[in-house]
Formats: sequence, C-alpha cells, structure tokens
Amino acid sequence: MSYCFGIDVGGTSVKMGLFRADGEMIDKWEIKSRTENGGEAILPDISDAITAKLKERGINTKEVLGIGMGVPAPVNREGIVKATANLGWGYKEVSRELEELSGLKVVTGNDANVAALGEMWKGGGKGHENMIMVTLGTGVGGGIIVNGSVLSGENGAGGEIGHLTVNADEEEACGCGRKGCLEEYASATGIVRLAARRLERDDKPSSLRGHKLSAKAVFNAVKEDDAVAIEIAEEFGRYLGYALSDIAVLVDPAIVVIGGGVSKAGEILFRFIEPRFRDRVFFANKEMEFALAELGNDAGMHGAAKLVLN
Amino acid sequence: MSYCFGIDVGGTSVKMGLFRADGEMIDKWEIKSRTENGGEAILPDISDAITAKLKERGINTKEVLGIGMGVPAPVNREGIVKATANLGWGYKEVSRELEELSGLKVVTGNDANVAALGEMWKGGGKGHENMIMVTLGTGVGGGIIVNGSVLSGENGAGGEIGHLTVNADEEEACGCGRKGCLEEYASATGIVRLAARRLERDDKPSSLRGHKLSAKAVFNAVKEDDAVAIEIAEEFGRYLGYALSDIAVLVDPAIVVIGGGVSKAGEILFRFIEPRFRDRVFFANKEMEFALAELGNDAGMHGAAKLVLN
Repeated sequence: MSYCFGIDVGGTSVKMGLFRADGEMIDKWEIKSRTENGGEAILPDISDAITAKLKERGINTKEVLGIGMGVPAPVNREGIVKATANLGWGYKEVSRELEELSGLKVVTGNDANVAALGEMWKGGGKGHENMIMVTLGTGVGGGIIVNGSVLSGENGAGGEIGHLTVNADEEEACGCGRKGCLEEYASATGIVRLAARRLERDDKPSSLRGHKLSAKAVFNAVKEDDAVAIEIAEEFGRYLGYALSDIAVLVDPAIVVIGGGVSKAGEILFRFIEPRFRDRVFFANKEMEFALAELGNDAGMHGAAKLVLN
Repeated sequence: MSYCFGIDVGGTSVKMGLFRADGEMIDKWEIKSRTENGGEAILPDISDAITAKLKERGINTKEVLGIGMGVPAPVNREGIVKATANLGWGYKEVSRELEELSGLKVVTGNDANVAALGEMWKGGGKGHENMIMVTLGTGVGGGIIVNGSVLSGENGAGGEIGHLTVNADEEEACGCGRKGCLEEYASATGIVRLAARRLERDDKPSSLRGHKLSAKAVFNAVKEDDAVAIEIAEEFGRYLGYALSDIAVLVDPAIVVIGGGVSKAGEILFRFIEPRFRDRVFFANKEMEFALAELGNDAGMHGAAKLVLN
C-alpha cells in the first residue's frame, strides 16, 4: 500500500491529513503552529508529527510517496517562500528543509491555490480540469487550475483574484495598498462595507438596521426579501460577476467554484453573480458552470495531497 | 537527423516552416489558403506541400517528429475546431484529418497562442517560461504562456486578452458584440478611433489634422512631440497598462511581450504603457519586464514547431 500526507499550514494551526495513494483520506488531525522565533519550530513539529503517525499506524517510510503542503505565502517552483505574513518565516527553502527533516519528498504550494486544487479533485470542481476557485472569506482568495495543475506563475503569486481592480473610482484602500480591488466588495468584510454604505445613504426600512452587520446577516435578510439587503447583494454580484467574465476571457475555465465563509449563504449567491456574468460573457465562455465548494476546511489538505499524487 | 514542420494557417496564405529538432528553421515558404468549398482543400494542400518538401530535401518521413500547426480559431485539446471566421471550416477534427493525410503526428493550437509560444521560445520572451503576449494588430490578440506551455483553456479560447472589459462606459460595440473591450482602444483600429475622438473634441493644433489617421501616424507624431498625439498615446497606454496589471494579478508572468503592427512604433510604446502598469501593479508582480516581439510573421511557424518539440 502507498500513502501520502496532505498538510495545510495556517497561522494558528497546521491541518494534517494522511491519504492512501487512491486519494482516500484515512486520518486527519491538527497541531499548533508555533510561530515564535521566526517560526523555526513549524517544520520540525510537522516532521515529528509525521514520524509519530507512521509509527502509530505501522507504516514504513518506503510506503510514503511524499508530503504535499500548502503555506500562506507565494511559493516558487523550487518550494521557496520569500516572506510570510503570519508564520514568522522570512526567506525559507520550505520543501528542501522539510525533505531534510523527514527524509521524504516534499512539494509545497500557496495555500489558496492548493485549496483550489483540492476542490477540483474531490469537491465542487470534480470532473473538471480547468477551474477558477474564488474563496470569499475575510479577504478574497483564489486559485486558477489549468489542465489539472495550479497556475502558480513566475513568483508563485498566480490566481490572486481578490486583487483584480474592479472599481477605478474607489477612494478607500484595500489591504494590499491599492484601491478598488475585488476584495473590497466581495469578501465578508467587503460586503459589510457595501452594506454600511448603502444603509447610510437613506432611511429606507431594512431588517439590517440596528444590528451588527455581517455578510451572513445580509444574505439572511436577502432570503427574507429585504429590499435593501437585495440591493447590497446585487452590488456584490455585479462586482464579482463582471470580474469572473474578465477572468474567463483569460483562462477559459469549465467551472467557477465559490467557497469561503460567505459561500455558506448557498445557492442564492448565484442569483446575484450569474446574471451579471452572463451580461458580459465572451461568446467562447458561455458554457461555464458555477458550483459551491464542498470540502470546507479540508480543501487544503486534499489539494496538498494531490500535489504529490499529480 | 530529426525534423519537424511548423505551420501557420491564415485566411490568405499558409506559412510553412521546416525545422531541425534543435529548433533551427532551415526552410520556409508559403502556399495559398484555398478557402472555397468549406476550405476542403486546405489540409490536403498542406499535406501535399509537406510530401513535396520531404522529397525535395531527401528526408524520410521516419526522420520527421511531427507537424505543429496554428489555426485562426479556438482549438481544443483534441485538435478540434468548432468554427472558423475565415477558413471556411465548420466543425473539423483538424489534427486527426491531417494525421490521416500525412501519416505524421499533428499538434494543433490557436494561432495567436501559438505565436506567443514562438516568441517565448525564440523571440522577445526568450529565457522565460511565464509570459503574456499581446499582439496589437487590426484587433488585439494574445497568448498566455504558463511554465512553458500555452494556456489554452477548456475550449481552446484562453488568452483572449483583447476582450477584457476595460471601459464599462463605452457605447460603441467591439467586433465581438460586447462593449468596452481592450481591443477598442489598443488595436491599430482602436488607436485610430481614439485619435478621431480626440481630434474632434477641440481645435488644438496637431500634425495629425488633415491627413489619413493611422496608428503609425499617431506614433510618428508622438516622436515629433506632437502634444495631441501624446494625449492619444497616453489614453492608449492607460487602457493597456491597467489591463496588463490585472492580467498579471491572475497569471504572474515574468515578462510581457508586445507584437503586431502597432509594435513597429518600437520602445516608445513602453513610455506610455509601463508607468500606467506601475501605477496599479500588485506587489508580487513588480519585477515583471516588458519587451518587443522579435519574430514578426515567423512567430507562428516557430511556435507551431515548438508544439511538436515540447
């Protein structure tokens, strides 16, 4: 029997999955991300956890095809990161270091891209090889899959869908320092921003008034036919639908998969995104489908395993 | 010795190149594109021309690695086109048909994408594996190269850079039926349109007045410091530079190569494009370089040969 590990490294915890070579996840667990001292303990902790798991299961290292890993930073083809926002790492030869620690082959990728690969393999994009993944969370993450592989680009920074400029007239800055990024309108925080702006504009009654705003509250109100909430969702859908038509012109995907916290609103999202996509769609992209992500927090582990099994 | 053919099929002529396996083009010639009767003669004519060339050179078919071919239509991975605008073909299994005619392996791609591959291999993008090619001709063509291969997408329609929406307020339609496509501002005809609009707006003196407008005339006037021509070039550069910053966010290229008739204006183009790109560039794409295409009309034959040698 052959196995591999699929690992998703985050700023708080490291999600670890053990997979059979046929793609079945047979075990998963978490360890803490010790980010202090430049994150020097993270890779040794991962290597120790792998050794312990192999011992526990009676698996010989010769049966392990390798370790796939997603990390929250751009990663180049040699598995090198230049800097991380929340792991403490500066320049780090991630794949090489973990290979030396573990004695196993390691393939490392960007976490958002790797999660996209997971959704293509086992989730909302199953059966397709050309896919756009959009993760609507605190920010807007993304991944572009071309012929079954991640489009990671020259610096490992491909698929940064959240930082497409969608509004040249925006005056507030995005977290990246630029203005008018998709993230400012389609992330959970972006939707709250749209909602606050809309509510301030006039006194039109809405169940959203007088409560703490959230993306969830907006879509709950949409489901109750709240007219103001529907306007907010329409603005969200316009930015995202138009952006997807532009991305499709460039990468010609079979499917767009939408994940992240905002996607918990469900199929109702497509009521706002898809008509705007169709307004602007290029003739060659008319067949493109929409789907919700299915793997939730397990997408990263699955995609990481797929990096090894590809 | 091993050889291959690189073939660029156009609506008027078919450009044929004979390459050694080391990538050196050792012969090139053209045949007529006989597009009448649904273009039924095109592939047999190509096959006959190949047979004649092999005989002329005393090359055995066993020495031929295959035929690479670019055609003016989306082409899927099986080498099938669904329709062509100017070859007469409807649905056609291009690779299979030419394989049966010639007895050789055939790989077919979209002509603009294939030309991009040629520029990466032997032209302005040499030494890079992640590249955007923008061809500024009658329209705006494009190609995206990822890790040395063409991003052709699900339907063979990837890299349609000319049809990014760059101006939501445009009222005139693009050739594709949509409004505000990059092609309406950055193609040779787009530049003429920008020039005509600008000249109509007021009476500011310009050497462009009273002559037939062309992209060439605009950039010639720019070189003579004509203030109105400079304004037109700035508008062109703003649309193209901003579009490139968005494309870079998605595909993270090492280099952008600019070709087509408009690129004959030379390095001066970058004076208008690059600062606008830098205004909006995402931090991860700051190292991206700009270059002019180098292969002219030979790019398609080179890229087609590379399809076989890849």
